[in-house]
Amino acid sequence: MNISHIEHIGIAVNDLQTAIPYYEKVLGLKCYSIEEVADQKVKTAFFKVGGTKIELLEPMSPDSTIAKFIEKKGEGVHHIAFAVHGVAEALKEVEEKGVQLIDKAPRKGAEGLNIAFLHPKSTQGVLTELCE
Amino acid sequence: MNISHIEHIGIAVNDLQTAIPYYEKVLGLKCYSIEEVADQKVKTAFFKVGGTKIELLEPMSPDSTIAKFIEKKGEGVHHIAFAVHGVAEALKEVEEKGVQLIDKAPRKGAEGLNIAFLHPKSTQGVLTELCE
Repeated sequence: MNISHIEHIGIAVNDLQTAIPYYEKVLGLKCYSIEEVADQKVKTAFFKVGGTKIELLEPMSPDSTIAKFIEKKGEGVHHIAFAVHGVAEALKEVEEKGVQLIDKAPRKGAEGLNIAFLHPKSTQGVLTELCE
Repeated sequence: MNISHIEHIGIAVNDLQTAIPYYEKVLGLKCYSIEEVADQKVKTAFFKVGGTKIELLEPMSPDSTIAKFIEKKGEGVHHIAFAVHGVAEALKEVEEKGVQLIDKAPRKGAEGLNIAFLHPKSTQGVLTELCE
């Protein structure tokens, strides 16, 4: 697998209305996009930081995976997304190396990317996204 | 505050001997440095990923903060480090904006950087490092 860079870091927050002003006014970053990902029941806000991005994730429903994450672990880093060429091929490769997959095939994520998640049981606790 | 990029993502792991082969053989990244940070009782391993780094953190003692983190939350992302110009000035600025600090003044971290941590209570649960 050829990872070019960290595409984004996903951070679970209770509400964007509190979190965005912190990232903008305290850290000095600029929110350039707010997008709903309906099938994940999540509202996202994006910030560029050098060559990578921060993606804030606010649950839109109590049964979204982000709501469950916050309930269990509190607000905080939810996942790391690595940019790769060919998500399907990368999934096949890591599965052959014994990694447990959450997504057996790529699906559409925020910003129109093809994405797939690896299970944190296989990645020392880091929920890992591959995307392109 | 002027953040140029994400300097690194700190990830708590039980042992580097298990984690490094995952990052090298599965993700295809290259460990370029292993370093002990004695005052934090931690052994670190670094990987470059595009313009940022991954820093794996293995506790060297049960009373290190990383050991306590793993005991409480399990292995996973421990902190995000933002590169800034002037850590002391940045600390002063964020404190004036109401952020609770862990380090009132910069101290030396891995790779000889000046570092300081902001308290996750003030940062929506993300343990945040400023460094230069």
